[in-house]
Amino acid sequence: MSAGDCSPNTPASSGAVRTDASALTEVDPSGIPFAQLDPALLRAQRTSIKWTRFPADVLPLFVAEMDFTLAPEIRDTLVARIEASDTGYLDSPGPLADAFAGFARDRWGWEVPGAYVHLATDVATGVVESLRVGRPAGGRVALATPTYPSFFEMFEEVPFEVVEIPLTIIDPDHAPQARLDLVAIERAFASPQGIDAFVLCNPHNPHGLVHSAADLTRLAQLAAQYDVFVISDEIHAPLTHAGVTFTPFAPIAAAAGALSVTTTSASKGWNLAGAKCSVIIAADEAANRLLLQLPPETPVRASILGLHAGVAAFAKGREWLDRAIAQIEANDALFAELVEAKLPGVRYTRPAAGYLAWLDFSAAGLGENPHERILTDAKVALNDGAAFGEGGAGHVRLNLACAPATIIEAVDRIAAILPGARPA
Amino acid sequence: MSAGDCSPNTPASSGAVRTDASALTEVDPSGIPFAQLDPALLRAQRTSIKWTRFPADVLPLFVAEMDFTLAPEIRDTLVARIEASDTGYLDSPGPLADAFAGFARDRWGWEVPGAYVHLATDVATGVVESLRVGRPAGGRVALATPTYPSFFEMFEEVPFEVVEIPLTIIDPDHAPQARLDLVAIERAFASPQGIDAFVLCNPHNPHGLVHSAADLTRLAQLAAQYDVFVISDEIHAPLTHAGVTFTPFAPIAAAAGALSVTTTSASKGWNLAGAKCSVIIAADEAANRLLLQLPPETPVRASILGLHAGVAAFAKGREWLDRAIAQIEANDALFAELVEAKLPGVRYTRPAAGYLAWLDFSAAGLGENPHERILTDAKVALNDGAAFGEGGAGHVRLNLACAPATIIEAVDRIAAILPGARPA
Repeated sequence: MSAGDCSPNTPASSGAVRTDASALTEVDPSGIPFAQLDPALLRAQRTSIKWTRFPADVLPLFVAEMDFTLAPEIRDTLVARIEASDTGYLDSPGPLADAFAGFARDRWGWEVPGAYVHLATDVATGVVESLRVGRPAGGRVALATPTYPSFFEMFEEVPFEVVEIPLTIIDPDHAPQARLDLVAIERAFASPQGIDAFVLCNPHNPHGLVHSAADLTRLAQLAAQYDVFVISDEIHAPLTHAGVTFTPFAPIAAAAGALSVTTTSASKGWNLAGAKCSVIIAADEAANRLLLQLPPETPVRASILGLHAGVAAFAKGREWLDRAIAQIEANDALFAELVEAKLPGVRYTRPAAGYLAWLDFSAAGLGENPHERILTDAKVALNDGAAFGEGGAGHVRLNLACAPATIIEAVDRIAAILPGARPA
Repeated sequence: MSAGDCSPNTPASSGAVRTDASALTEVDPSGIPFAQLDPALLRAQRTSIKWTRFPADVLPLFVAEMDFTLAPEIRDTLVARIEASDTGYLDSPGPLADAFAGFARDRWGWEVPGAYVHLATDVATGVVESLRVGRPAGGRVALATPTYPSFFEMFEEVPFEVVEIPLTIIDPDHAPQARLDLVAIERAFASPQGIDAFVLCNPHNPHGLVHSAADLTRLAQLAAQYDVFVISDEIHAPLTHAGVTFTPFAPIAAAAGALSVTTTSASKGWNLAGAKCSVIIAADEAANRLLLQLPPETPVRASILGLHAGVAAFAKGREWLDRAIAQIEANDALFAELVEAKLPGVRYTRPAAGYLAWLDFSAAGLGENPHERILTDAKVALNDGAAFGEGGAGHVRLNLACAPATIIEAVDRIAAILPGARPA
């Protein structure tokens, strides 16, 4: 594998995208004026943790929820289900299997057999339940860090011992890009204690890293060689930026003979985290035999409203999604300019998928815990990088799925407390 | 404890209720004409398992979903949340704690401290997660049978070894009534192997048995004496029939010093099984310390739409609930008359809570598996009593939460295959 085989984390925002995107900054992907997404207005309307965890003087850019208005196709579908009093039990993915398979085929060329699709509450439940049927409790699970903090909670829940394999950071002091450290991964897989399972975050949260096909192929080969069960969390995949190629892990795993399942949902792409519905997809027959051992209650724990929202998203929400991605790209470009201009010492890992901005504040003069200083002094709530595992300290994660004015306000608030941005 | 201390399973339908209820048979609790709840129409509108598991020529009276239209207060609440794009994450019960506590106080005189209320996906998840934190896996869990078949799946999931303690059936050959067998329960608790946990179904599914305060007090004393952790599933409690006193287990457990949690939801009373939201309530400080050890992802797995539906149900859906109960009582009375008139040899355990009819077909001449015969020959889908554990064979469970015409149709279909109902 040569470095030329892959271009991890290529920033998607070209000049063209930014020019196009500038036309989008008046309305959100549903056509709602951004003025209506003012945080003060959203706080009065919404009840999720983004709007309830911190007081009103704090700008909430932490949890991965979008401020954008629900896609009209999803809204109409949900209202129709409610009007039909269609609030009973589920026992299978039903129409969601086809809707997801159609999306996967059209966007990624991934052919998903309907029989390989299993229903679950959310992607986290997919990870936990897959681990439970895939490997005996008490085993060792590896993952690339820094990464989504809740993974650590999931592993403790099963429980599994966690082995952190830090990402390689290319050009960390200027334009950081992350990449799987496949040498370190092989070393862990081949170690005397071995690795039972690897949780792949594809695209990788928080860096918005879209793994290359070459890296995923190597990972699959290693997993097959060392009998490591790979769970691929692909929740951010629908939000892959324009011009970037997302590679689903399942076909690669199947080709390599690696045991793997994929856990995904419409919840991130279309902002349905609280609707509670996800799918777990077997990469091949062996993986499907595993998933057929899931507790029979697993699909019953998915919401019928979430299921129909997912069907609407994958089948009818693609134009909305494209507009959302374009807005995210515009916000990313805006944010990169603002970081450059107003946040000296801060290094921004540009995402190639999703709306999460991963920021290295370790040279920005806010001390050991920039998250705390930014929350307390700048009144901006971000995610604390230290919770993302090894390599996360000194970093914060910021949510770009909001009105551009919200991003500008956040940067201004943070700039005001940065030593380098102050008059000396 | 004398038999006079308790009157388990008292039929709630007095002559007065039936007369009142007869006025209700034109419309459902939401005021929708029953003609609109014709199964053929519902099948075209709804997608839950009640309407997808069997072909169109089968009348589905199996799973515990209501045909009744959603309470307008719940419908409006859900639509408002969707219009607000309020589909993000939860991390706590928020307003649901107060809404449930208000309902519990007003209906049952149970004072529920907000801090004792924990959020979960559904009542089944509440049972599973409570078992996981309450007792080491591999222990022995007891329950009174016949009972809700999914309990067995939950215990296998954790896993726990199941100890079935058959209910006492009073007057089985004429007007069956069920009651906890507290002598057998004590014997199991005191056995050399012991019992780690007892799952109480309160009211008990499928009999609609509302346990007496005296029986629950004795159970709590035994649980305290033998250190048995009691999980009380109270999902059917809001549907307690008029004139029947439901007793929450938590205050009794707390008074007796028994370790106990209660798992409940608006999902049964207001037909929100697919909305995925429940609460787990600690009976006292010791139980709350246990629930504080629940995996941190537990509340995240509840739906924000389900939560708001639950708030609307407990706070604003009480008149709807009373109308639903009155309709269920009317349906129960109608059904009892029809069984008496048209289903010779069938013995009906009249429910004192909920809308489930438990029917003993063992003397009705349909052989060892009446459920199968009724499905195949009468084209009525019921629950197979054999799946409810010891004492369930020869029985079926039928769902009364439908238009009266549907009940009449079901009885006619079943009567047509009964040997005793045929011309000899």
